[in-house]
Amino acid sequence: MKKLVHGGDIYSKKNLPENLKLIDFSANINPLGLPEGVKKAIINGVDDFCNYPDPLCRELKKEISDYLNVPEEYIACGNGAADVVYRIASAIRPQKVLLTAPTFSEYEDAVKLFDSDVDYYYLSKEKNFRLEIDILDKITSDMGLMFLCNPNNPTGVLTDKETVLKIAEKCKSTKTILVVDECFMDFLDNQQKYSVMDSLDTYKNIIILKAFTKIYAMAGIRLGYGICSDANVIEGLNRAGQPWSVSVVAQKCGIAALKDTDYINRTRGLIEHNRIFLVNSLIQLGFEVVNSKANYILFRTEVKSLPHELEKFGILIRSCGNYRGLDETYFRIAVKSKEDNQYLINSIKKILSPLHYLSQCGKI
Amino acid sequence: MKKLVHGGDIYSKKNLPENLKLIDFSANINPLGLPEGVKKAIINGVDDFCNYPDPLCRELKKEISDYLNVPEEYIACGNGAADVVYRIASAIRPQKVLLTAPTFSEYEDAVKLFDSDVDYYYLSKEKNFRLEIDILDKITSDMGLMFLCNPNNPTGVLTDKETVLKIAEKCKSTKTILVVDECFMDFLDNQQKYSVMDSLDTYKNIIILKAFTKIYAMAGIRLGYGICSDANVIEGLNRAGQPWSVSVVAQKCGIAALKDTDYINRTRGLIEHNRIFLVNSLIQLGFEVVNSKANYILFRTEVKSLPHELEKFGILIRSCGNYRGLDETYFRIAVKSKEDNQYLINSIKKILSPLHYLSQCGKI
Repeated sequence: MKKLVHGGDIYSKKNLPENLKLIDFSANINPLGLPEGVKKAIINGVDDFCNYPDPLCRELKKEISDYLNVPEEYIACGNGAADVVYRIASAIRPQKVLLTAPTFSEYEDAVKLFDSDVDYYYLSKEKNFRLEIDILDKITSDMGLMFLCNPNNPTGVLTDKETVLKIAEKCKSTKTILVVDECFMDFLDNQQKYSVMDSLDTYKNIIILKAFTKIYAMAGIRLGYGICSDANVIEGLNRAGQPWSVSVVAQKCGIAALKDTDYINRTRGLIEHNRIFLVNSLIQLGFEVVNSKANYILFRTEVKSLPHELEKFGILIRSCGNYRGLDETYFRIAVKSKEDNQYLINSIKKILSPLHYLSQCGKI
Repeated sequence: MKKLVHGGDIYSKKNLPENLKLIDFSANINPLGLPEGVKKAIINGVDDFCNYPDPLCRELKKEISDYLNVPEEYIACGNGAADVVYRIASAIRPQKVLLTAPTFSEYEDAVKLFDSDVDYYYLSKEKNFRLEIDILDKITSDMGLMFLCNPNNPTGVLTDKETVLKIAEKCKSTKTILVVDECFMDFLDNQQKYSVMDSLDTYKNIIILKAFTKIYAMAGIRLGYGICSDANVIEGLNRAGQPWSVSVVAQKCGIAALKDTDYINRTRGLIEHNRIFLVNSLIQLGFEVVNSKANYILFRTEVKSLPHELEKFGILIRSCGNYRGLDETYFRIAVKSKEDNQYLINSIKKILSPLHYLSQCGKI
């Protein structure tokens, strides 16, 4: 049985005490939930779900193309961004891969299926988990593939566009494919400072990874895509798995989601505001908090029992001990609604209070 | 761009004349459409689609396990049976693979991703496309994997259980994994004569492939699974791709579908009755018809323009010229509703009538 290593496992925690509702801070999903237009697309589309999906995702790709202002031919859709990650690994089959540590663990799982050697660029607490330009030294001519998650997961730390482009330039010289995972970029107001979307024509070796999963709260529907100006790469991604990976449900939902620009604006305002509240509250509680610009926050505390204690309040958070480069003193939480965030902070306060501690030890 | 080689491409044919409804005979989907319980599961489940799916598909596997009376640990779910085919290819990576010709082309596409050599057992018109016991000679010790589609797609011809078990026995001796694709078996009344489901414990080298796609008309939702008693094989399938391949939508729909046994009974009666009508009608029209026991029919005619002519009636059928072992005189149609089947036959009659022919040639 594959071990559960990610957040979002609400299915193991079904037997909470009656008065408790499960609140999942362990998966980084938009707290606004599915856009209304997406819900309608599902309900109105039910009678079409008996048909095979369009393997070429033509209508969906046209909408993405209009939305991002990139040619349709640059786009390869998948069953969530994770599907695209595995297709990249299969299509490239690199001898050697460069990853940051910590980062999203599926990159490593995917390339290890193809026996790639993995080299790591360690991000350190001392440098606030910032990626610095000395990463260029790690990009050698035997490096077939590199993944760069921006903002990084689980830290939420951004790498500015200038640095990403320097990396892309070095990768170009070493014939390395650079995957820039911008799945969480949509939560930012000032994407243009960070996204390399407008550099795809200059760097045919860049694949940008995007997802509907997070920003549109479509994690259970599964829809992601890769964008690249190299037609051979796109063809490789399409060939690397079954033709019908993107369901009719996902295609219809994606088309509906892109039409709801108001939802994105509301999301950005909400996340920014609520993240500041959470960061300040966690600092006040004495935790070390990483400078996240995303819809999730990484923090450090010696209270290693925190996830276990929070479960008694119906709260799930992500323990980060299984991230390479972190240890069991690190935890990640999603930025959720005002009420949920307040409940989380209040619950942590209770856990940290001496009274609570003593009662847990059976001393009072 | 990946070429469209399968049926079901209703998306290229959107611009029909106004008075024509598209009727798709090219994809083998249950004509009853989605079961009502599945539609309800989608509509009632909408608010849960924002959550990540259970990577272990625990509730769904429990339901499948109860339904088929096989242990949950034997089951690996996927994003449609085609996803499981690619996972099998990735997990096994056989040096050599045995396929029948013709058969479902994704087996070959999947194993070719891993540079496997493919050997073919040709099914011939002279033998009514029946698989015979001389196939055993093809199973050699360098054969890592074999696919056997039962009933076969696109012929609809069944192989009896005794023969499949002889193949399994030979495969056991050569350490060959035998994939028995029983995706269309559910349309049969007397499955026990053909399915090897009760032999999984004897043959740890058998993987049975099953799908919700066809029998429950869930092609646009994507749900399939593999069943095998070898825990290493199941673990290999689970590791061979992303953890969240089965959407929350698919998991909920699968659970709901299995509860609707009446739907299956109605399906079987309908398909049997309507297949007989179609077979007799096609024979009367002078076509050579293969003895199908499935929900689709393969036939042969020199009227190679048939798909093109039928499109003018709003009808799609599957040209089989791109199946290895067939040529452009072969066509496959799905068994659909009484009305649709009658419309198909009437349309073919019109196409074959001398009057129609002359008018097409501009002679009258």
